[in-house]
Amino acid sequence: MGKSAIDKAKDLAVERFLNSQPKTMSVEQMVAHIAKGDQHVLAKAITLVESTQIAHKKLATQVVNECLPLSGNSIRIGITGVPGVGKSTFIEALGMHLTQQGLKTAVLAIDPSSNLNKGSILGDKTRMENLSVDPLAFVRPSPSSGTLGGVANATRESILLCEAAGYQVIIVETVGVGQSEYLVKEMVDFFLLLMLSGAGDEIQGIKRGIMEMADALFVNKADGDNKLYAQKAARAYANALHLFPARDDEWIPETGICSAIKSENIDTIWEVVRKFEKQQKENKQFYERRKKQSKTWLLEQVQYSLKELFFQNPNVEQNMEQITKNVVSGAITPYSGSQELMDLFLAK
Amino acid sequence: MGKSAIDKAKDLAVERFLNSQPKTMSVEQMVAHIAKGDQHVLAKAITLVESTQIAHKKLATQVVNECLPLSGNSIRIGITGVPGVGKSTFIEALGMHLTQQGLKTAVLAIDPSSNLNKGSILGDKTRMENLSVDPLAFVRPSPSSGTLGGVANATRESILLCEAAGYQVIIVETVGVGQSEYLVKEMVDFFLLLMLSGAGDEIQGIKRGIMEMADALFVNKADGDNKLYAQKAARAYANALHLFPARDDEWIPETGICSAIKSENIDTIWEVVRKFEKQQKENKQFYERRKKQSKTWLLEQVQYSLKELFFQNPNVEQNMEQITKNVVSGAITPYSGSQELMDLFLAK
Repeated sequence: MGKSAIDKAKDLAVERFLNSQPKTMSVEQMVAHIAKGDQHVLAKAITLVESTQIAHKKLATQVVNECLPLSGNSIRIGITGVPGVGKSTFIEALGMHLTQQGLKTAVLAIDPSSNLNKGSILGDKTRMENLSVDPLAFVRPSPSSGTLGGVANATRESILLCEAAGYQVIIVETVGVGQSEYLVKEMVDFFLLLMLSGAGDEIQGIKRGIMEMADALFVNKADGDNKLYAQKAARAYANALHLFPARDDEWIPETGICSAIKSENIDTIWEVVRKFEKQQKENKQFYERRKKQSKTWLLEQVQYSLKELFFQNPNVEQNMEQITKNVVSGAITPYSGSQELMDLFLAK
Repeated sequence: MGKSAIDKAKDLAVERFLNSQPKTMSVEQMVAHIAKGDQHVLAKAITLVESTQIAHKKLATQVVNECLPLSGNSIRIGITGVPGVGKSTFIEALGMHLTQQGLKTAVLAIDPSSNLNKGSILGDKTRMENLSVDPLAFVRPSPSSGTLGGVANATRESILLCEAAGYQVIIVETVGVGQSEYLVKEMVDFFLLLMLSGAGDEIQGIKRGIMEMADALFVNKADGDNKLYAQKAARAYANALHLFPARDDEWIPETGICSAIKSENIDTIWEVVRKFEKQQKENKQFYERRKKQSKTWLLEQVQYSLKELFFQNPNVEQNMEQITKNVVSGAITPYSGSQELMDLFLAK
């Protein structure tokens, strides 16, 4: 399982980028710059966190660990929705609403599919033209390659780095398909699902499990002729949400309509987030959720690291092909093949 | 991560069962009995395969490996559908249809939820009263505990054992919720989805991903007043399936209606299976699919065994709690915690 051409190209790019920096910057210096809100060094630290090179990772771990005491003081918002729902426009509108109040806002993205060269959701920075140039905002394109586990970890650590740099609101964008919603739900305090009004197919297109995770569900593009449909859809969603069992954290998910392009009801959504934060801090669920998330992160990271350790083990690498052949040809069972590989892995 | 009370009770039950057998039975003798179609020894071998005790597992691996050259000569059918769709009645009807033609039929079940004491799908043998007593049939209740990975592996190896015992059709039943469908799809040649007609909500209740995996989709309970609704639903499903992209294996999924309780159209479904088998053997996809499945089994088993190895490692066990505490309290990042655990795991 050698590195892919994409990974190699990425390592090279990281190397070049790092070499363009003063080489003398120590961990302490990087942390001090991040703590001062230096966006350039913050971006560099995130690049380290996203790198697949072991030396970069080690450095990144030190930086993130040093930043830990400075982190945690933000509200983390996950935003998802099917492609075409207008996530970027919405995030720009919300971000501008926040920076206008003086709130430092960071936008991160998680997009495991970018991995497969399907294009990256935040890759095109021009999609958030105004927010990108706002001095109170930090917009980070999606990591362009890596495994799901690696991408998830990079996003988590990027959240901590942004918090250390003083960002008060962290928005994590995800594509509205596949597994990334579950990953994002595990790294945010508040999870917003954006929907579209449709001709009768309101419930389709999004999995029940994702609706169940939402703390708020807003129908976007509620403007012009579409406004009535959006209102109708929002009512249908509200009814659907009522069918779900009451939540342990006592929060009742809110529904509504908005128009990102006209910046309508963006303030309402932000009020919902604030209301949620207040209630959940009062009943301590805010802190409990973060503790549980840390535990989940640890276990996920263990699984991911274990796999990495295993497939990079020279004994395993050398014998993988032959054992796979034996299994595929039916000479041994997959279970036996796995046991053989375990023995090779544990042999020194 | 000690054994649960359920696991301990199960080990004890296995031990008692094994002790009730002639202790002198060697691997060779067990395999010989299985090859002769001895249902009692087949059941015993499956019990070994399902056991969580290391000694039992070692023995099971030997037996399964010896049975491998005798296995593979069956058509493996996965059957799923939401609870209440009538899977057991359907499997009994199909099973009886097959044994009446002289085809030896085995029924296995995969039900990871039984794990959580939610009750086992095949636990109540009386649900297949006629098939259970048919000498050409072998009905095996669902494994009553174990992790998803363990249950999946046990089912896979049970398929191989049943084949070695001469069963020509292997039916794997799964509950129509959660992840078990994906596991079953990876162990069968043909995947049948049973559906219910409903008042307009035909598409709901089952994930798109599961519909996409189906080689055939039949609406059950098409009897009496319900027949018209079932026909309507079947047409709706047929339309929905047409929206999916064409498959690489050239198979076009079939839809229709049936009544398990009246044994209507069971023969039609069996003809669909036979047609599928013929086409897929001619275009070699039948064999290619099995090869791919073996590879997937190996990788899944590797992941499962790795996790087991890790969490049973004494160094890891001793430090897990403290490291988790440090992560949860925010003293170290989940990534650092994971690295610490990796170092402990690799230390001898």
